[in-house]
Amino acid sequence: MDIGLVGLGKMGGNMRERLRRAGHTVVGYDRNPEVSDVDSLADLVEALPSPKVVWVMVPAGDPTRETVAALRDLLGEGDVVVDGGNSRWTDDLEHAETLAEGGVGFVDCGVSGGVWGLENGYALMAGGSAEDVAKVQPAFDALKPEGEFGWVHAGRVGAGHFSKMVHNGIEYALMQSYAEGFELLEKVDMVDNVTEVFRSWREGTVIRSWLLDLLVAALDDDEGLAGIRGYADDSGEGRWTVEAAIENAVPAPAISAALFARFVSRQDESPAMKAVAAMRNQFGGHAVQASAPPGGDVGEDSAPS
Amino acid sequence: MDIGLVGLGKMGGNMRERLRRAGHTVVGYDRNPEVSDVDSLADLVEALPSPKVVWVMVPAGDPTRETVAALRDLLGEGDVVVDGGNSRWTDDLEHAETLAEGGVGFVDCGVSGGVWGLENGYALMAGGSAEDVAKVQPAFDALKPEGEFGWVHAGRVGAGHFSKMVHNGIEYALMQSYAEGFELLEKVDMVDNVTEVFRSWREGTVIRSWLLDLLVAALDDDEGLAGIRGYADDSGEGRWTVEAAIENAVPAPAISAALFARFVSRQDESPAMKAVAAMRNQFGGHAVQASAPPGGDVGEDSAPS
Amino acid sequence: MDIGLVGLGKMGGNMRERLRRAGHTVVGYDRNPEVSDVDSLADLVEALPSPKVVWVMVPAGDPTRETVAALRDLLGEGDVVVDGGNSRWTDDLEHAETLAEGGVGFVDCGVSGGVWGLENGYALMAGGSAEDVAKVQPAFDALKPEGEFGWVHAGRVGAGHFSKMVHNGIEYALMQSYAEGFELLEKVDMVDNVTEVFRSWREGTVIRSWLLDLLVAALDDDEGLAGIRGYADDSGEGRWTVEAAIENAVPAPAISAALFARFVSRQDESPAMKAVAAMRNQFGGHAVQASAPPGGDVGEDSAPS
Amino acid sequence: MDIGLVGLGKMGGNMRERLRRAGHTVVGYDRNPEVSDVDSLADLVEALPSPKVVWVMVPAGDPTRETVAALRDLLGEGDVVVDGGNSRWTDDLEHAETLAEGGVGFVDCGVSGGVWGLENGYALMAGGSAEDVAKVQPAFDALKPEGEFGWVHAGRVGAGHFSKMVHNGIEYALMQSYAEGFELLEKVDMVDNVTEVFRSWREGTVIRSWLLDLLVAALDDDEGLAGIRGYADDSGEGRWTVEAAIENAVPAPAISAALFARFVSRQDESPAMKAVAAMRNQFGGHAVQASAPPGGDVGEDSAPS
Repeated sequence: MDIGLVGLGKMGGNMRERLRRAGHTVVGYDRNPEVSDVDSLADLVEALPSPKVVWVMVPAGDPTRETVAALRDLLGEGDVVVDGGNSRWTDDLEHAETLAEGGVGFVDCGVSGGVWGLENGYALMAGGSAEDVAKVQPAFDALKPEGEFGWVHAGRVGAGHFSKMVHNGIEYALMQSYAEGFELLEKVDMVDNVTEVFRSWREGTVIRSWLLDLLVAALDDDEGLAGIRGYADDSGEGRWTVEAAIENAVPAPAISAALFARFVSRQDESPAMKAVAAMRNQFGGHAVQASAPPGGDVGEDSAPS
Repeated sequence: MDIGLVGLGKMGGNMRERLRRAGHTVVGYDRNPEVSDVDSLADLVEALPSPKVVWVMVPAGDPTRETVAALRDLLGEGDVVVDGGNSRWTDDLEHAETLAEGGVGFVDCGVSGGVWGLENGYALMAGGSAEDVAKVQPAFDALKPEGEFGWVHAGRVGAGHFSKMVHNGIEYALMQSYAEGFELLEKVDMVDNVTEVFRSWREGTVIRSWLLDLLVAALDDDEGLAGIRGYADDSGEGRWTVEAAIENAVPAPAISAALFARFVSRQDESPAMKAVAAMRNQFGGHAVQASAPPGGDVGEDSAPS
Repeated sequence: MDIGLVGLGKMGGNMRERLRRAGHTVVGYDRNPEVSDVDSLADLVEALPSPKVVWVMVPAGDPTRETVAALRDLLGEGDVVVDGGNSRWTDDLEHAETLAEGGVGFVDCGVSGGVWGLENGYALMAGGSAEDVAKVQPAFDALKPEGEFGWVHAGRVGAGHFSKMVHNGIEYALMQSYAEGFELLEKVDMVDNVTEVFRSWREGTVIRSWLLDLLVAALDDDEGLAGIRGYADDSGEGRWTVEAAIENAVPAPAISAALFARFVSRQDESPAMKAVAAMRNQFGGHAVQASAPPGGDVGEDSAPS
Repeated sequence: MDIGLVGLGKMGGNMRERLRRAGHTVVGYDRNPEVSDVDSLADLVEALPSPKVVWVMVPAGDPTRETVAALRDLLGEGDVVVDGGNSRWTDDLEHAETLAEGGVGFVDCGVSGGVWGLENGYALMAGGSAEDVAKVQPAFDALKPEGEFGWVHAGRVGAGHFSKMVHNGIEYALMQSYAEGFELLEKVDMVDNVTEVFRSWREGTVIRSWLLDLLVAALDDDEGLAGIRGYADDSGEGRWTVEAAIENAVPAPAISAALFARFVSRQDESPAMKAVAAMRNQFGGHAVQASAPPGGDVGEDSAPS
C-alpha cells in the first residue's frame, strides 16, 4: 500500500524502514528536511492515492494535536489518519471528532517495541471502526512481529492507546519487581554473583521474560550497574494508568509503587522526609542532619519515642 | 549417577521421572508405600554406592528438619544431602551444621518450574561448597532445562534458597502487576475483548513473559475468569522476601503490595476497614454499613469532612 | 453582617445556626421549602444589602456549577460568592471566571469539622483576593473555632479548596494508620483488651489525636466494632490528592495506600486476585477456589514454584 | 516506694527526676559514674528493701539481656524487674523465663513521651501478671500523665512492648501522612504560606493532633525546613510492626510505605532504580545518567516503549 508517515525520529524512521522492507510505498515527512521525503505535509498528502492513509508519529500533546488539525484541512472523505504516538487515550476522542468534521476517519494505535522493533516487529494495539482499521491493515501487517501475536484491534477509538497505556503501567510495575529483587540480592551478602543468578533465571523459571533478558544484558554491559545512576524518568503512561485506576476505583498498589519510586529517584532532596525528620526531632530529640554538607556525627537513636 | 530421593509428591515424583529419563538410577522413598521404591530411609541409604547423594524433597520446616536429622545418623563422611524443598534459607545454616557433625556435606537447592518441570526442566539455584555441589552435578544437569540457562551455583550454603526466595518475591510482584492491568482493562468499558488484548501482548511487547502466556491460557480456559475466586494463598517465600528486605533496609514497595493484596484477598471482613468506617461515622455522620447482611441503603456521602 | 446561604443540608443547616448564634442575619435557601427562609434564589439575593455575600453549600460538580451560574445573573459589581462545598480546586478557577463576567468576586473555602462544627466551630481554608475575603471575614470569624487556630487565608482563588483537599488526603492516610494498628492488635493474641490500649494512648503518646479519640468513642459504642462492616466510601478529595501528587511528581505512597484500601473494601470480588489465582493455578497446579459458594477443600500449597 | 533504676541516659535520667518529684526513693545506676547514685548493680540491689523493684532502662538487645541476667543472680523470690526500654516483645518472653529461674517476676513496659515526658508524663503500656504489675504500680502512677489516660495493663508478659511496637508503627505512618501532604503543598504553587495552612489545621479539623502541633513548631523554627536534610532513621519498632503484620497476614500498606520511605531517604544511590534505568535503556534507548557527576544532557523521553 501507499502510506504517509509524519515524524521520522527514532521510532518513525525505523517504522518507515520496516514498511519499505515489506514492499510498501512510504512518503515520509519530518520537520527535519534531511530525513524527509517531501517538503511539506501538503506535499505528503498530495503524493498519496485515495483513500489516503497518513500515520502520525510525533510527540503526544500539542505536536500531535496540531498535526491532526493540519491533516483535517488537507484530507477528505474516506481518508484515514492513524495516531501511532504516545497520546493519552482521552485525546483520541478529540482527534476523531476533529477529523470527522472533514469526513476523515481516525485510528489510534499503541505501539510497543522500542529500538528492537525494526528487526523484531512492533506490537500494535489499534482502536477505531472496523472500516477505518481495514484501510490500514496492510501497514499493521508489515509492522507487527512475524509470529501469531503482537497485533490486536482492541475496540473503538481510544481503545488502542488505552491498551497501550495499561501495557506501560504493567511494564512499570514489572520493572520495579525485578529491581527490588536486584537490590535485595546486591545488598545481602549471600550470593557470589548476582548477574549469574539473574542469568540462570532466563530459563525454566516462573519469572522468565524479555525484561529479565534485558536486565541480564545490562548487567553484562556494566557489572553491578556501577556506571548508571539510579534515576528514572517517566513518560506519561504510568501516571495515566494510575489516574485511570483511581477514576475507576481500581486498586493499583504495585503500579503506583513503581511510579512513586521513579519520582523519588529524581529528587535531590525529599521535602516529605524533611518533615518526618523534623517531627522526630521535635518529639524525641532525635538528631537531624543539616541540609548543608554533613559536617558532624548523627547521634545514635536510642531513645524510646 | 545413583541418587536417593526422599519425598515423592507432585514435585518429587516428577523429578524422579526426569532423572530416570536421563539415565540416572534413582532410589525413591516416601511415607506412602505405594509410590516408594524402598521401605525405609535406611533402605534407601543402604541401596546407594558411596559417596552417597540424597536429595530431600519434603515440606519445609519440621518434615525437612526431621529428615535431615535422620540422614545425619544414616550417612557418613563424604556423603551429601541436597535440600530441594522450599526451606527458608536461614534453616539451611542449621541443616548444614547438623550434617557436618557426621561429616556429611550439604547443598541447598531452590527449584522452580512447577508442574511444567518434568517436560521443560527445572530451574535450579544451588548453595554449598564447590566440592559438595560437584557430587550432585550430574543430577543438576539432568533436572535443569536443556538450554544454556536455568542452573546456577549461587554461593555458599543458603545462597540457593536465598536466590529462590528472591525469585518468588519477584514472582509475586510480577503477578500483581499483570493482575492490576487486567482489572483496569476489565473495569473500564473501552476494550472489546480483554483476552485478545492480553494475547496480542505475547509478542513484540516489553511485557512479554511466561506469566503473561499463562494468564492468556487461563483466560482461554475460563473467559473473564468467571469461575475463579479472587483468593490467593501465599507459600512463605513472599513473606520471607519482605522480611529480608526489611532486615536489610531495602525498600520493597511492589513486592509488599503484592503480598498484602493476597492477605486481603483471604479476608471475609477487614478489621482495618471497620476502623476506618467507624472513624468516618464518628466525625462526619457518614453512614456505616451494618455487618449483618446489608438490609438497607447506604447514604450518599456529601458532607464536607 | 447579612449573608445568604444556599444549601441547608447537614452542613449548611448547622452553619446557619452557628452564624445566627454569633448575631449575623442569615437568609437561607434550599430546594426543600421546609428548611428555606425564602422561596427562591432570587428572593435570597433580593433580601441582602449591598455588597451582597452569598455562601454556597451544595454538592460539588453540577449543583455548585449551576448555582454559581444562577448567582452570576442575580448578583452585580462588588458582590461576593463563597463556595464552601467540596469542590475540586480546579473548578474554582472556572467559577471565579464565570462570576467575574458580572463583576462578582469569588472566594473558595474548604470547610472541616463535620457534625461537630456547630458546637466546636469549623476549620476554614479560604482562597481569593484580600478584598473579597475581607467582605466575608465576619462570617469566617463566626464559623471558625474559638481558639487562635482554625482559619487561614491560604492564597489566591483555588488555594482554599486545594488546602482542604490536601487536608483530606492526609486524613485518609491517618485513618488508615490507626486502622492497620487496630487490625494487628486484634489479630495477634497478645493484648487483653484492644479498646483499653487505644484509650491509654489518648494522653502522653506521640500518636494522640482527635481521630484517636473518635476511634476510642467508636470502640466504646461497639466493642470490637462487631456491628460495622469493613466498607468505606470515599468522597473525592482523596482521589484528587493522589491525582495532584501524580501530576506534580510527588510520591504519595501512604495516601494512595489508604485510598486503594477503601476501593478494595467495596469489592465483593477482586478481578486482580482472580488473575493472580489463575496464574498460580497455571504454573503450579495450585488449587483455585471456585467463585461459586465454596463447596470443597482448598488443597494445601506445598509445591515449589 | 523504693525503686532501682538502671540506665540514666536521656530517658532514664528524666524518669528518675519525675519519680523523685512524686516522692519516691530512686536508686539509680549507670555505667557512667558521674550520673550514678551507686557504684554497681550489686550496690543498687543492696540498697532496696524487699520486695525489690528494679526498672531497667538500657538499650534493647544485648545490653538489656545482660542486665536481666545480672539481676537474676542478684535478686530473689518475689522481686520484680521492669524492662522499660525498647525491647522487642519476643525478647520479653526470654527475659521472663530467665528471671523466673530465680523466682523473680518480670514486667515489660512500653514507654512513650520522649523529651516531653519529664513535664507531661510518660504513656505506659505494661505486660505481666497482675501480682507483678501491682508491685510497680506506684512508680507507674508517678510516671504516667496526670489525666485519666496514658496507662494500661495491656496483658501478659510481652503485651506491653507489643502495644508500644504497634504504637510506633502507627506513629511512622502518621508522620508519613503529614509529610506527604507537606510535600504536595510545598510543590504546587497554590498556597502562599504552607506553615500558616498547617497552623490553621491545629483546631477544628479532623487531622488535628500532637504530631501536627510538632510539625508546626518545627516549621516555625525553620521556615520551609530548609536547614534539615530529608533523612530519617528508624529505631526498630517500625520494622517489627511490619514483620508482625506479615507473620499474621495483616495487610499494612501505609505503615510499610512509611518504613520504606525512611529506607530510601538514607540511600545515596538506589540499586533498584539503577536496574530500572538500565532496563529502560535496553529496550527503549532511553538515556541513562552516568553515576559520575552528570556531564551531559539527558535526552527527552519521547520514544514509545
